[in-house]
Amino acid sequence: MRDVSVIGAGMVKFGKYLDTSMKVIARDAVNNALGVAGVDQGKIEAAVVGNAMAGLITGQECVRGQVVLREMGIGGIPIINCENACASSATAFHLAWLYVASGMYDVVLALGMEKLYHQDKKRSFAAIGSAVDVEMMQKIIADMNAQQEQIKAERAARGEAPKPAGGAGESRSMFMDFYAAGARAHMKRYGTTKEQFARVAVKNHRNGSLNPHAQYQDVYSLEDILDSPVVAEPLTRLMCSPIGDGAAATILCASSVAGRYTSKPVKVLASVLSSGTDHGPEDPGVVTRVTRKAYETAGVGPTDLNVIELHDASAPAELMTYEELGICKPGEGGKLIDEGTTEITGRIPVNPSGGLLAKGHPVGATGVAQICEIFWQLRGEAGQRQVRNPKIGLTENGGGMVRNEAAAMSVHIFGM
Amino acid sequence: MRDVSVIGAGMVKFGKYLDTSMKVIARDAVNNALGVAGVDQGKIEAAVVGNAMAGLITGQECVRGQVVLREMGIGGIPIINCENACASSATAFHLAWLYVASGMYDVVLALGMEKLYHQDKKRSFAAIGSAVDVEMMQKIIADMNAQQEQIKAERAARGEAPKPAGGAGESRSMFMDFYAAGARAHMKRYGTTKEQFARVAVKNHRNGSLNPHAQYQDVYSLEDILDSPVVAEPLTRLMCSPIGDGAAATILCASSVAGRYTSKPVKVLASVLSSGTDHGPEDPGVVTRVTRKAYETAGVGPTDLNVIELHDASAPAELMTYEELGICKPGEGGKLIDEGTTEITGRIPVNPSGGLLAKGHPVGATGVAQICEIFWQLRGEAGQRQVRNPKIGLTENGGGMVRNEAAAMSVHIFGM
Repeated sequence: MRDVSVIGAGMVKFGKYLDTSMKVIARDAVNNALGVAGVDQGKIEAAVVGNAMAGLITGQECVRGQVVLREMGIGGIPIINCENACASSATAFHLAWLYVASGMYDVVLALGMEKLYHQDKKRSFAAIGSAVDVEMMQKIIADMNAQQEQIKAERAARGEAPKPAGGAGESRSMFMDFYAAGARAHMKRYGTTKEQFARVAVKNHRNGSLNPHAQYQDVYSLEDILDSPVVAEPLTRLMCSPIGDGAAATILCASSVAGRYTSKPVKVLASVLSSGTDHGPEDPGVVTRVTRKAYETAGVGPTDLNVIELHDASAPAELMTYEELGICKPGEGGKLIDEGTTEITGRIPVNPSGGLLAKGHPVGATGVAQICEIFWQLRGEAGQRQVRNPKIGLTENGGGMVRNEAAAMSVHIFGM
Repeated sequence: MRDVSVIGAGMVKFGKYLDTSMKVIARDAVNNALGVAGVDQGKIEAAVVGNAMAGLITGQECVRGQVVLREMGIGGIPIINCENACASSATAFHLAWLYVASGMYDVVLALGMEKLYHQDKKRSFAAIGSAVDVEMMQKIIADMNAQQEQIKAERAARGEAPKPAGGAGESRSMFMDFYAAGARAHMKRYGTTKEQFARVAVKNHRNGSLNPHAQYQDVYSLEDILDSPVVAEPLTRLMCSPIGDGAAATILCASSVAGRYTSKPVKVLASVLSSGTDHGPEDPGVVTRVTRKAYETAGVGPTDLNVIELHDASAPAELMTYEELGICKPGEGGKLIDEGTTEITGRIPVNPSGGLLAKGHPVGATGVAQICEIFWQLRGEAGQRQVRNPKIGLTENGGGMVRNEAAAMSVHIFGM
């Protein structure tokens, strides 16, 4: 396996593109990446395209990548469509990396793209809901609803008014129920507070306000976050990643020839993909397992990291991922956010882009968009949200859920 | 890149599994392949799963492979879902090959699976219809319909009765219109006859009658084929691949360690994937281009081939593919079938399995099923349909159509 570098990255501002074709947003992302790399599109030897949900949203169930790339004149090369739910484009990047690392091709495109908005919002949530075992889904939803009812009953027993369920039923993703259950377990086990979760959202929205690619660029106070409508206790709406459309692209290149294109290649130090298992309570889980393998491959540890983009589909997920990545001890995620350690100016900045919470989460575009951010950060090109002089960056991107663990989990480590 | 071998292959009989979960048919195919390989499922280090249309048929838009594999206890490894329309599982095999060839993993599963039957048959055809540029589809359908109307008018002008359009509109795939247009062009250019196309169907149905995995195992005469209902002139229903469900699996292994598992590994001599281009008339097209690269990689030519499984989604496609693979000259496909060269007992047997026409065409399962057949043929395990002592076999599997050329095209060459 030979060394691989990223030589170009580009994306479109995440947002609502209801009347814009996927061809247009994907083309813009690819052209931005090619422009940065200084590579003509004719030099691309293979392309891997991550998308999760076009079949259910646009009806383009098959050959999604070809439809987009042929439109801009890219063809006659291997084009692979891959899917791993929210980790679809981290998977695309992994495969593009594999093509180059194997020695098969020198210059490969990894593209992530998603249109999630639909005039019928139920369709967007149904699409997201297909990232679990659909046959089992009904049963799980029933269990979760029962749990929510119990919480309501407990509030009532304490004489508290029931909180309005901001987006219950068809107007929210069932994944937020999973995240809420995980958050409640963390609170119970470690004493983590709702305020600590909210602080993650404050940080990421503030970071997003500095990122021209972010879907939401508004700054919120702790109170704003806590007072936004409850989605599923303890999650409020501003602690949840939004529906969004977007595209992000990277150009990968054999490190041995990267110098032809750029003086600032970003090295891929590790590209690790895995899936969940049915494991016992002593197993640290898929995020920790994949991260450890990535550290081992890259020859670095958590204290070597200077910048992280992680999968904050909900604010509590970020805090728990701190622990799984080993940047703090189990149960100390809350302390880390309280101390400001993961702020852009902190010891180990996390989600300087605004993360999924503020930059947005167009499912199939997210993994490559995280890598774009690390690319810009390591090259010192991140503008107002630039982390001070980072040398090593990590991305963590998970997708779907099967039998109570992530269906796909990907960790990449990059270095200058 | 190191040498890769196939050490196990398994599939389920293709057919109609309306009330059977994809989990069941995929599990059976995987277990069959593992059994042949003598590999415990715990030895699988990565899995690549090809499926084209589950999102539109079963609603399982995301993490299709994980849902199926986790159910049978396979997890904690990279699981990648890939899609390339009818070439989805040839693409899965290609990626599995890449994982092994790169040196990253020793034992990798490639699985293809599809459930295409739906109580509402329109939904099946709509799913197949999504393997083109959906935005452009309406225009293309309108053009094709106009062409059909012209043929009808010509028949009427000659005083011939209009043939009943056996499966017009919602009860046939629009792909058959593409194939029919190609067939008519071949007839016009080379004088190929409808009887020659029909002879392909006679052969493949006869071969299918010898294959216990085939969806249809009936023998038909030339007259039966010609007299079956017209789908789109000159195609009759028995010249078109049917709707079907199925799954097929292969176990790939580094050749250097294949001896641990089997004394009869089948070597992968070439694994080539590409996509169509907007090319001029002098370009031979994507099948020829990909095949030439495969020959070059394998160090063989068309005269070295002893058995072929190719993408006979319609009977004329098989005949034209003879020419594109170079096993006869351009325009001589009809002669080849007339002379019986591609019969099981002929000089270069094609589709001994019965091909897509008789074995069936559960889209995402087809590519790996073709490879299963070559695996059995090269190992001398193909029972009544066994080709005499083959040493080199080839599979050709195409998928989708964008801007008038295949969206994906894959050729694999295997040797003992």
